[in-house]
Amino acid sequence: MQLGMIGLGRMGANIVRRIVRDGHTAVGYSRHEEQIKEFTEELGDGFSGATDYKSFVAQLETPRIVWVMIPAGATGAVIDEVAELLEPGDIIIDGGNSRYHEDVKRAKALAPKGIHYLDIGTSGGVWGLERGYCLMVGGEKETVAHIEPLLRSIAPGVDAAERTPGRTGEPSPSEQGYLHCGPAGAGHFVKMVHNGIEYGAMAAYAEGMNILAKANIGKHLDDEHSAEVTPLENPEYYQYDIDVPEVTEVWRRGSVVASWLLDLTAAALHADPELSSFGGRVSDSGEGRWTIHAAIDEGVPAPVLSAALYQRFSSRGEALYADKVLSAMRKAFGGHNELPGK
Amino acid sequence: MQLGMIGLGRMGANIVRRIVRDGHTAVGYSRHEEQIKEFTEELGDGFSGATDYKSFVAQLETPRIVWVMIPAGATGAVIDEVAELLEPGDIIIDGGNSRYHEDVKRAKALAPKGIHYLDIGTSGGVWGLERGYCLMVGGEKETVAHIEPLLRSIAPGVDAAERTPGRTGEPSPSEQGYLHCGPAGAGHFVKMVHNGIEYGAMAAYAEGMNILAKANIGKHLDDEHSAEVTPLENPEYYQYDIDVPEVTEVWRRGSVVASWLLDLTAAALHADPELSSFGGRVSDSGEGRWTIHAAIDEGVPAPVLSAALYQRFSSRGEALYADKVLSAMRKAFGGHNELPGK
Amino acid sequence: MQLGMIGLGRMGANIVRRIVRDGHTAVGYSRHEEQIKEFTEELGDGFSGATDYKSFVAQLETPRIVWVMIPAGATGAVIDEVAELLEPGDIIIDGGNSRYHEDVKRAKALAPKGIHYLDIGTSGGVWGLERGYCLMVGGEKETVAHIEPLLRSIAPGVDAAERTPGRTGEPSPSEQGYLHCGPAGAGHFVKMVHNGIEYGAMAAYAEGMNILAKANIGKHLDDEHSAEVTPLENPEYYQYDIDVPEVTEVWRRGSVVASWLLDLTAAALHADPELSSFGGRVSDSGEGRWTIHAAIDEGVPAPVLSAALYQRFSSRGEALYADKVLSAMRKAFGGHNELPGK
Amino acid sequence: MQLGMIGLGRMGANIVRRIVRDGHTAVGYSRHEEQIKEFTEELGDGFSGATDYKSFVAQLETPRIVWVMIPAGATGAVIDEVAELLEPGDIIIDGGNSRYHEDVKRAKALAPKGIHYLDIGTSGGVWGLERGYCLMVGGEKETVAHIEPLLRSIAPGVDAAERTPGRTGEPSPSEQGYLHCGPAGAGHFVKMVHNGIEYGAMAAYAEGMNILAKANIGKHLDDEHSAEVTPLENPEYYQYDIDVPEVTEVWRRGSVVASWLLDLTAAALHADPELSSFGGRVSDSGEGRWTIHAAIDEGVPAPVLSAALYQRFSSRGEALYADKVLSAMRKAFGGHNELPGK
Repeated sequence: MQLGMIGLGRMGANIVRRIVRDGHTAVGYSRHEEQIKEFTEELGDGFSGATDYKSFVAQLETPRIVWVMIPAGATGAVIDEVAELLEPGDIIIDGGNSRYHEDVKRAKALAPKGIHYLDIGTSGGVWGLERGYCLMVGGEKETVAHIEPLLRSIAPGVDAAERTPGRTGEPSPSEQGYLHCGPAGAGHFVKMVHNGIEYGAMAAYAEGMNILAKANIGKHLDDEHSAEVTPLENPEYYQYDIDVPEVTEVWRRGSVVASWLLDLTAAALHADPELSSFGGRVSDSGEGRWTIHAAIDEGVPAPVLSAALYQRFSSRGEALYADKVLSAMRKAFGGHNELPGK
Repeated sequence: MQLGMIGLGRMGANIVRRIVRDGHTAVGYSRHEEQIKEFTEELGDGFSGATDYKSFVAQLETPRIVWVMIPAGATGAVIDEVAELLEPGDIIIDGGNSRYHEDVKRAKALAPKGIHYLDIGTSGGVWGLERGYCLMVGGEKETVAHIEPLLRSIAPGVDAAERTPGRTGEPSPSEQGYLHCGPAGAGHFVKMVHNGIEYGAMAAYAEGMNILAKANIGKHLDDEHSAEVTPLENPEYYQYDIDVPEVTEVWRRGSVVASWLLDLTAAALHADPELSSFGGRVSDSGEGRWTIHAAIDEGVPAPVLSAALYQRFSSRGEALYADKVLSAMRKAFGGHNELPGK
Repeated sequence: MQLGMIGLGRMGANIVRRIVRDGHTAVGYSRHEEQIKEFTEELGDGFSGATDYKSFVAQLETPRIVWVMIPAGATGAVIDEVAELLEPGDIIIDGGNSRYHEDVKRAKALAPKGIHYLDIGTSGGVWGLERGYCLMVGGEKETVAHIEPLLRSIAPGVDAAERTPGRTGEPSPSEQGYLHCGPAGAGHFVKMVHNGIEYGAMAAYAEGMNILAKANIGKHLDDEHSAEVTPLENPEYYQYDIDVPEVTEVWRRGSVVASWLLDLTAAALHADPELSSFGGRVSDSGEGRWTIHAAIDEGVPAPVLSAALYQRFSSRGEALYADKVLSAMRKAFGGHNELPGK
Repeated sequence: MQLGMIGLGRMGANIVRRIVRDGHTAVGYSRHEEQIKEFTEELGDGFSGATDYKSFVAQLETPRIVWVMIPAGATGAVIDEVAELLEPGDIIIDGGNSRYHEDVKRAKALAPKGIHYLDIGTSGGVWGLERGYCLMVGGEKETVAHIEPLLRSIAPGVDAAERTPGRTGEPSPSEQGYLHCGPAGAGHFVKMVHNGIEYGAMAAYAEGMNILAKANIGKHLDDEHSAEVTPLENPEYYQYDIDVPEVTEVWRRGSVVASWLLDLTAAALHADPELSSFGGRVSDSGEGRWTIHAAIDEGVPAPVLSAALYQRFSSRGEALYADKVLSAMRKAFGGHNELPGK
């Protein structure tokens, strides 16, 4: 099968590598002639490239399959431009991190032209080439079915994990690492929630590790902060100098919290035990926020996922005004003068 | 009636002033001769003082009433020392901010000596002289009844608020501003929860005001933070330059969130509209923490009160290690490099 | 001055009463002839009514002032219909609980017709007639200035609270209980955040009161729940039978958490000490949700306000699926069989 | 090496099986003659048993190693009783779920008798026999070193996971699945935090799955709840019937949230897609609570771990009183009558 890929950044490139490796062919679009050249050298016959959309589209067999893998902010404009060059029956895929609302609108806009639209939430990050990508797909059933040979090559495959007890026979798509989640937007919806969960799970580890890291607070009772808090009642219970990197390593085997995230965390802490290369400002991309928007629209309680998101906001100083208000109140009713700083 | 007061700091002093003003008399203990002199001048016949416990105790009529109003950390030792000088039937009151656990232990320790013990959670802060103190009392019924004349003078009195619809006749003690909450520790328990609620309510205002303060974020889309977050989807809805001090003022009349805390906040913001005298580090005293300990022991969900407490921890940088862990994880699976700083 | 009021429900009716009481006049629209008759009898010359929009508009002096005070869901259609009958220079006010997004759109849609639009967030609930309404106004400066005589009659007035220290001279609008918050939508934006804070403050009280109510858990150790939780380590600290209604009463005077909400809570608990008339399902209207949407869009941490909202979702059983997932996990890794029920 | 095991429940039994399988021998204590017989048959020469402590102790070679693996509530009394029969140099291990405070006290109490004490937090649940147990050990270095041959047999071993990049040479103990975390109590401290993290991660999945499960709410707008909430603004975005069991399966391969918990969840949902065997009441054992107590003592923000714990409380109806208070407030200021039920 043949795939057209717009965007040869890390993820787009690795998707192309995985399908070519499996015997499919790819046509890549990049604005950078150099990049096309490199890919052609690397992938040989399986790959051809273009630096303008016309030539790109011309190299694709019909029905064309065009996968757009670029930053979410730019995706809409590119799809609009390329769609102008496509014909009824062609397929456009947004494999990036668009909000699923966009998919609902785009599918509707493209339908009258006979162009099929799929949204594919793609998880795997920098590890996808080796590990395969987890693919969450939204769109019409037939269109998804049509591109399944490609999905199978991009996804990890059933051997990437032990089979779930009770699942036998021919592995289902979900067991191979891709899933048709529903109509337009369903793929990005499921990917969005995936990331929301990711935020929550990350925060669970991070909070726990912080508790471990401060388990020796009973040894440091007269430090600078003492004026700000009540004295610790039971310092004898906080005398532990826990080796947090070692703890993350031991939890990787046999514990309930073993996970791929923990594997990565153990590796990161082994390489930088003091986490000295990080400053503590944590970014957030759209998915974590959209997950909470969805929870609220649905009336579903999401206290853990929200707390995880807010901690990221807070890490960037976004609580500062609120904190000053608290200090002002404390001074007003109690005469407390907060220590300066921050 | 006569009250012995150990500790003539702001709260102890104002309690003495309120009772003397009402015709009671007071004996004050202070290590500082100067302070005793000042009080004697200010209060005249109603007051006498001592700089050692023996003389303090000797000036008290039996059954003696000794109110200890000093920092929680020092209270235990002082009570132990004074109790040695007291006689069966005398009364010791801890009016400070001890954890109620201490009251349970102290009442038990003093009982064999025939000394009665009361714990009185005292709210009112720097405004108590003028506004009266809200008194939450724990201990034996008879002992509480015995000191009621003093409680009535210290508490705000029924006129401090409109009577609750349905309450008629002789005002109850609770309407006068003091309440016998239960046996030893009950006073400090109720005061502890009072402060827990205070944290939560303060945080509710502070978060809301932060949302108001950032309502113009749609005007500042290309600022420094842009690399850390997904672009705002609807900047047209965030174009408001809200005058937060004015908003707190307007809410004081007719709104659902009118409160004494809001009165103070409006005053603080009127005096310092930019809150420029505050650095954003918010202290926490024991009560907020103990409230959560109690909620967890009881199995009662307290997500709001906990979130309020954690925000204070966070304001002091206590999430930093956790934040670095998050950044390390993000780099490990997504190749994201967080911006330095904080 | 003359006000046209569409919607004579509790709030619309009481606004009309307040302005007529102050010497203004009102034209009321209601579909119910009967209601118009009653109002005419009650208010005399100050009031006239109509049961169709044409007659309603015809009775208004130009520039007409039309206040729409109906459920948010119906407001848009009514405004569209009435706007057809208005002339350039007329003013439409949405005093209901619309999301501020609607205001931004409506103001833009009405501008070409020369119709001025104001959004007025109106707080005061069932108490507004007596207590006055807190008014948060969005729109053009001149339009707001034009209707100020009406706002002054509807708002509580400066005497409704003690003046904030430092504020002297002629009371500002905010001190009288109304505030021009900014352009279209700003009024509903501030009202939205007001309600968000209200959710948070309510939850703070409710959680604290729950902790008080369960302070006797140490007396009931062998009850039905014992199989579900670890035994209480220190039952001696949970032996208090706290009279929660009395506690809310005592906090009304002199405490830091005194507030109008607490006044109401004390009254409700005095009338129904066991809260037996309530089943525990708590509704939420739009504002609490929109506040969180705004916080997330702005990147502002709002853990307290969110937790308060989620608790309402949870009270209606919306966490059930998540809870079942937790039970399934616990069984899978630990062999735990949860008790049935709920 | 020889191990004495008190408590032949699932975990104790499987630990015995793992060491005997590796060539060690075990002496088991059980009150049930029958159980001893069964084990002797199953394990042959490697096992001998006793139904009284004297005989149990008599069968152990010195220095004796006594592992106590019984419910936390009973552990203290058993250790006291057995310690009476032991000699200087013997070792007692608490492998159960005691709070680490107990370990600090016990180690101190046993030291004068020359008895060494270890606390071993043991994770692995029902899967330990097959998967091995993750062991978090607290106590003196020499004592831990002495029993390492046993720990190696009980732990999963290095092959249970891919080695962390950067780790080479002889696998460290942490890589084999056991870790000496620090002095007495450190093992249970780390295990406690492990469980705290487990709560948070579980809740992250559960909340996310709840959001998926309700993604079709736009199809059900006029159901029973409609009176309790504001209408959904954008029903077109909530039209997805997500197959949650299939989503958990697809996430197992290539996604960021792949984990052992997810493996189990996928299996549980495959077996019972509607989760119909669960009622929604979620138990909590001590560790989740103790984790929060520790976080608060340390002043470390733990909003995610706390929210996870509170959701369990809430699932058991423990928010009911607070919810009623909210309803009472809503009625008092807004005249809202909540729907009955719950």
